[in-house]
Amino acid sequence: MLQDRVLKNILPTSSEALEIKRTVEELKSKCADTIKKLGINAEPILVGSVAKGTYLKKPDIDIFIMFPTDTKRSFLEKYGLKIGETVLNGERKYAEHPYTTGIYKGYEVDIVPCYKITNVKEKMSAVDRTPFHTKYIIENLKDEQKNDVRLLKQFMKGVGVYGAEASVQGFSGYLCELLILKYGSFASAVKEAGCWKRRILIGSHAEKFDGSMVFVDPVDEKRNVASALSAENISLFTHACREYIKNPRAEFFFPKKPKPLSKKHLLKMMNERGTGFTALIFGKPDTIDDNLYPQLRKCEKSIVALCAENDFKIVDSAFYVNDEIFMVFELESLELPNMKKHYGPMVFMPNAKDFREKWEKDGFTSPYIEKNRWVVNIKRKHINVKDLINEKITGLSTGKDVSKSVRKKFKIVEGKNILQKKYFLYMTMFIDKKFRWEY
Amino acid sequence: MLQDRVLKNILPTSSEALEIKRTVEELKSKCADTIKKLGINAEPILVGSVAKGTYLKKPDIDIFIMFPTDTKRSFLEKYGLKIGETVLNGERKYAEHPYTTGIYKGYEVDIVPCYKITNVKEKMSAVDRTPFHTKYIIENLKDEQKNDVRLLKQFMKGVGVYGAEASVQGFSGYLCELLILKYGSFASAVKEAGCWKRRILIGSHAEKFDGSMVFVDPVDEKRNVASALSAENISLFTHACREYIKNPRAEFFFPKKPKPLSKKHLLKMMNERGTGFTALIFGKPDTIDDNLYPQLRKCEKSIVALCAENDFKIVDSAFYVNDEIFMVFELESLELPNMKKHYGPMVFMPNAKDFREKWEKDGFTSPYIEKNRWVVNIKRKHINVKDLINEKITGLSTGKDVSKSVRKKFKIVEGKNILQKKYFLYMTMFIDKKFRWEY
Repeated sequence: MLQDRVLKNILPTSSEALEIKRTVEELKSKCADTIKKLGINAEPILVGSVAKGTYLKKPDIDIFIMFPTDTKRSFLEKYGLKIGETVLNGERKYAEHPYTTGIYKGYEVDIVPCYKITNVKEKMSAVDRTPFHTKYIIENLKDEQKNDVRLLKQFMKGVGVYGAEASVQGFSGYLCELLILKYGSFASAVKEAGCWKRRILIGSHAEKFDGSMVFVDPVDEKRNVASALSAENISLFTHACREYIKNPRAEFFFPKKPKPLSKKHLLKMMNERGTGFTALIFGKPDTIDDNLYPQLRKCEKSIVALCAENDFKIVDSAFYVNDEIFMVFELESLELPNMKKHYGPMVFMPNAKDFREKWEKDGFTSPYIEKNRWVVNIKRKHINVKDLINEKITGLSTGKDVSKSVRKKFKIVEGKNILQKKYFLYMTMFIDKKFRWEY
Repeated sequence: MLQDRVLKNILPTSSEALEIKRTVEELKSKCADTIKKLGINAEPILVGSVAKGTYLKKPDIDIFIMFPTDTKRSFLEKYGLKIGETVLNGERKYAEHPYTTGIYKGYEVDIVPCYKITNVKEKMSAVDRTPFHTKYIIENLKDEQKNDVRLLKQFMKGVGVYGAEASVQGFSGYLCELLILKYGSFASAVKEAGCWKRRILIGSHAEKFDGSMVFVDPVDEKRNVASALSAENISLFTHACREYIKNPRAEFFFPKKPKPLSKKHLLKMMNERGTGFTALIFGKPDTIDDNLYPQLRKCEKSIVALCAENDFKIVDSAFYVNDEIFMVFELESLELPNMKKHYGPMVFMPNAKDFREKWEKDGFTSPYIEKNRWVVNIKRKHINVKDLINEKITGLSTGKDVSKSVRKKFKIVEGKNILQKKYFLYMTMFIDKKFRWEY
């Protein structure tokens, strides 16, 4: 059966599970030793998918260092990092809150300081809720449901909607677990999700929250577990569920890699459409993905808005991240006519005179009257989109790191000049619009 | 002084005035004789600008045949026409109501039957109000104001806003007279009109009427004398008044004829703009102007709407009437890309399946998801505006007579092919957008 075959691929073997268990114990005892040496009051605990038994192969290991609630914030941060760095030789990360991340015996490990609160309502830092999630799942998820969680996670990975991080805006592991608790099994979850409607509301008073999907956190009624989820990912997941039910295939869990089309094929597709393509290319900004992706979305949105303000009609846009950022736009046309109709005030308005004086000489016509307004046919400022972006890009609101990289260096390529080999895959995905399970 | 010089040109000489007076007397007595011979009960009276003494050179002469109010409508129409045809050897015209028009001793004469009502409220036909207007002006307009009316009429003629007929949508002669009564003199009227604001309300309870300008008829409080006036003509008149005050010149009264630009010059202007031009040309429909112009406006509007529905961006449009109708459109582009983005239902909608099935094979892409909607990139039906108009023109709502003429024969010309000699003047006016006093 398909599900069994998939599980075989994702379920850690018993020796792997044992190795993970040992690694966790080592990490916890190293943390405890360090705490002891430092002579402070704190306690290491395992949280996340390993603690809950819902992990896939090669899971991340999340160790939280719990400090008493009367610990000063600065103390917690300083010693939290100290413990992490001693154990991991790792790298400091700053989310809302500093922590250490590193590789330990081949596993990615996070060591995160938090406050040992007794009630979620007393939450003092962004991560204090996590141990409650872990506890809730351990207490409520039945053993036989753990593999259902694993299947759902892998299905979401395959479809491209797994992970609450900014680069994905998808379903978190905890949300997967809650969906299995809610619907009972992988099969039921997929069936139910295929029937999701406009707004999905789960949990009491879910209607009080905004958003396309609300799953009220069972450990904190003030939180929507699905808040990071984009509308597109909800739609994509719902559609994938329906398609999977019609025709269950391994490709939903393990999609094939898209193959780039040939230059000839891409050129033919571009020419047939008769639209224009332009791409902005710049170096990958030096920041974590959780900062980078929101900035790239902002940058894309700003350029789309810039084009619209200047009458360029955008058909589609996207970006792809590698060592470069490849941000591509499809437009109805790369060029606009030289002339533009410019509407002025109504004829009776006091400022009509200024408008007429301003445009008396500058336009293709003098100002003239249309219905009750002044109008003038003037020279358009930007008649091609490349020049427009070139001139305006450094002034756009794009976020700190993107802005820095763009200021350093960027290029804009148009039409068939985009078709360099390293961009074939991006252009294929951009033009082709296939779902991941369709390759 | 300018006004005196203008008056010299427009004021009938005393011998001309005498000739007009004699002609009117002849017409009235011929009507009376005919009435007598027919043995019916009716009475001819002079109305309009000749009766009011506000006429320009070569005025139309309007004779009304007043029938008792107990006359049957069919009787009035039959004998009204009979009298007109006997006196004039003229042509039957049907406005709301039949009358005779013809040339008599070089003057255009209308002979119009009406009911001799004693109170405007009892109005039985569309024209019964006219004798009251004539009486009102005779009783209220001072002798020395008659030339002010004449100046205002000529000014409006020059500016292009004189005449309530459908081809102009301007100021009627009666409205000119009322404006002089209201403001006192030509100079004051021009000064006041130059200060008109968003909505011009004159007369008690004027605010009860719709329209950009309301002048409540002093003989009928239920009627707005300015109802036929277009917003554009009000604006144009206001602007002309302001310009005239700044710099009074004979050109406002007697504008020079616009001179067509050369083919070379027109072509240069068209190319510089970078826009596209297309013209629809068909024979002048066989109907009176009061029917023709509303239909032509409707036709123009329908084509503009058709273009907009099909994503063609219209910059400007106009039509010119001769033995042909020359209807011209300026567009951002005569062509659009082959591909068009087509938005479908939201992903969760029951009809989403139909949309996906419909477009599965037909598009440049299969349907894909954008936010929470299905989208597909499809082939555009009409990629050039000529083909679009060609295919759709006979199905458009354009009015009976225009439709008939277009069905018989039409042609569509584009770009530089429009530049045939007979269209140079139209293209000059269309592109140049000068005011009439600026040539």
